[in-house]
Amino acid sequence: MSLTIGIDLGGTNTRAGLVTASGEIVGRARRPTRLHLGAEGVVEGIVECARAAARDGGISLSEVQGVGVGAPGPLDPFEGVIISPENLQCMHGVRLKDRLEALLGLGVVVDNDANLAAYGEQWLGAGRGVEHFLCVTLGTGVGGGWISEGKVMHGFNGNAAEVGHITVDHNGPRCPCGNFGCLEMYASATAMVRRTLERLEGEKPETSLKAEDLTTQVIFQAAEVGDDFAMQMFEETGFFLGVGLVSLVNVLNVDRVALTGGLAQAGDWIFDPAMRTFWDRGTVGVKEYVQIVSAELGDDAGILGAARHAKVKSKK
Amino acid sequence: MSLTIGIDLGGTNTRAGLVTASGEIVGRARRPTRLHLGAEGVVEGIVECARAAARDGGISLSEVQGVGVGAPGPLDPFEGVIISPENLQCMHGVRLKDRLEALLGLGVVVDNDANLAAYGEQWLGAGRGVEHFLCVTLGTGVGGGWISEGKVMHGFNGNAAEVGHITVDHNGPRCPCGNFGCLEMYASATAMVRRTLERLEGEKPETSLKAEDLTTQVIFQAAEVGDDFAMQMFEETGFFLGVGLVSLVNVLNVDRVALTGGLAQAGDWIFDPAMRTFWDRGTVGVKEYVQIVSAELGDDAGILGAARHAKVKSKK
Repeated sequence: MSLTIGIDLGGTNTRAGLVTASGEIVGRARRPTRLHLGAEGVVEGIVECARAAARDGGISLSEVQGVGVGAPGPLDPFEGVIISPENLQCMHGVRLKDRLEALLGLGVVVDNDANLAAYGEQWLGAGRGVEHFLCVTLGTGVGGGWISEGKVMHGFNGNAAEVGHITVDHNGPRCPCGNFGCLEMYASATAMVRRTLERLEGEKPETSLKAEDLTTQVIFQAAEVGDDFAMQMFEETGFFLGVGLVSLVNVLNVDRVALTGGLAQAGDWIFDPAMRTFWDRGTVGVKEYVQIVSAELGDDAGILGAARHAKVKSKK
Repeated sequence: MSLTIGIDLGGTNTRAGLVTASGEIVGRARRPTRLHLGAEGVVEGIVECARAAARDGGISLSEVQGVGVGAPGPLDPFEGVIISPENLQCMHGVRLKDRLEALLGLGVVVDNDANLAAYGEQWLGAGRGVEHFLCVTLGTGVGGGWISEGKVMHGFNGNAAEVGHITVDHNGPRCPCGNFGCLEMYASATAMVRRTLERLEGEKPETSLKAEDLTTQVIFQAAEVGDDFAMQMFEETGFFLGVGLVSLVNVLNVDRVALTGGLAQAGDWIFDPAMRTFWDRGTVGVKEYVQIVSAELGDDAGILGAARHAKVKSKK
């Protein structure tokens, strides 16, 4: 049986799955990511996690065909080198592929976590059977993974599909990336909270929402019980998301977009205005064929995509 | 010797070149595109042009390996079917690939003219040696052709790289495509003239420019002799172009962008503000590697790209 290990390296947890050729996860492991031990501690945690997932599946690591790791970007997917990710600063410059290959004695591929989540969804989730697929994560930021002709797209240096950093309003607020009015400044969970706070303070709207401990979950709950201002904030956020999706589809010509991340869990509150805007503004001859859907695999998308990536690469 | 024919089908002229494997054009022909004769007249014109180019190169059509045709979009490049192009309405629905194959007795490929111009530039012009390349045409509209890993990218239904229809300002003017504030509404030659006229009439600026017969060429000449208002219009247009290029590079991760079309001929007047904006707003870790250059092949880009496309396809 051909098994690979997929690993999702996050700023909080490192998670691994032992995955069959058909995409069943037959072993699992999870460890806190030990940032306080520095890069070596993080790397050792990955190795431990890989071993534990194999053991959990009843085999030893030597029986595994290869290992795929999804890590937060920016990174160099060709060389498997981590480049200064916001939540894993201690990993800056680590040649993760080489280090893990030496420690594990197996072939290792490293890629952007958003790319591999998209690859997982395209294999077994919301992108099944779709050759041109975009997966957009609405979380702290707005990230993306993009598949064209069934392959993960990287561009010249691994930074393709930075979908949060397309312009929505050239006069908008400055984004940490250097651009102004990026999609991420409007349609991430963080941006929605920031914009809600600004209006709470500036406009003093009639609402049950309070500035303290505001999250998109809290805004969601308020919308669910009919809070007009909360509903309006979803309407606005979804509008901007729709504006971004029009640009993305006009350039990438994907026929399915899956939304994932915290904000996507708000369901119709975010999907309805996004899809309405997409339909209002999209191009005839394209928009009729495009489906905007929820991602299906949750946290497993990254593990499955990483395992698949390891499998495809080990065949070459 | 392996020869293919590349054809550039335009609303005004149909042009053909007989092209060697190394990209030398050894025969040429040109005919007015006979729109008044309808689809059959246009198709016959293409056939005549192909024959004439072969004859001009001293061979007969039967010695040719294949024929590539670049046509104005939208079209279906997979089936080779034309879909309602603005300047070739009579061709709507014509199965151009099938028709030409029957008439010529040769394999024919049909693709978007902007895609094939990009492919030509990547073969022999401004994109030589670059695997991730975007060619942006600044003409009546803003069009694009995009190469990734050396291949022309199409997306799910052949409408990838519609780079004129990314949003620059979600509150901007409505574009005929249905979107609002598209790049094309700011950075095409048409848009620059329209915006200049609006300001001439609205603001009555001190300038030598007049509303009558205004073209980007006229604005260029005024800028060259120090007309402040004309310079300002280039500054603005270049700024918007730069805003668009930031979004495009953030999504496509290409490391070279070539500009072509009428407005690109204004040289530094348009390049300087575009590159300054790109540098101001681009992402660190990407922008340092990106070159923004002039296309090199002019009108031959499309013929060469079409000939190359025919060659690559005939090998499969």
